Amino acid sequence: GALDHPYSLNIGTTSAELLKKLNEQRDIIALMDIKMKEMKHTIQQLKVTEARLKEEVRERDRMLSAAVVRKKV
Amino acid sequence: GALDHPYSLNIGTTSAELLKKLNEQRDIIALMDIKMKEMKHTIQQLKVTEARLKEEVRERDRMLSAAVVRKKV
Repeated sequence: GALDHPYSLNIGTTSAELLKKLNEQRDIIALMDIKMKEMKHTIQQLKVTEARLKEEVRERDRMLSAAVVRKKV
Repeated sequence: GALDHPYSLNIGTTSAELLKKLNEQRDIIALMDIKMKEMKHTIQQLKVTEARLKEEVRERDRMLSAAVVRKKV
């Protein structure tokens, strides 16, 4: 997996190069963080929609029951 | 924002320290990647549920229309 091969200090790797990689990764983390916040918002919205649709199904079931009762009377 | 303050090469920052930070960031990215995959899966499941519930609402609307038509006849 991705965690199995950490960076190792190769001969010739300069601090400037390490620093460049460090900043590149930092930007990746910042972008991933934004993406995760967007996904959390999407999940929250979908859960609200799910609850609303379940209520709509229940409402129609009540109406159908009432319709059946009226027909029997 | 998080992108505004990149790491800078301070006097006394050793390659070993930079390397340690680099590997810490790398682990964070790997964990965020796993979390994002889980969230994508959750979003996919919620969209499937949404489609199913919408179909259930439509089905009950058809049944209600049929019930109303029968009552009128």
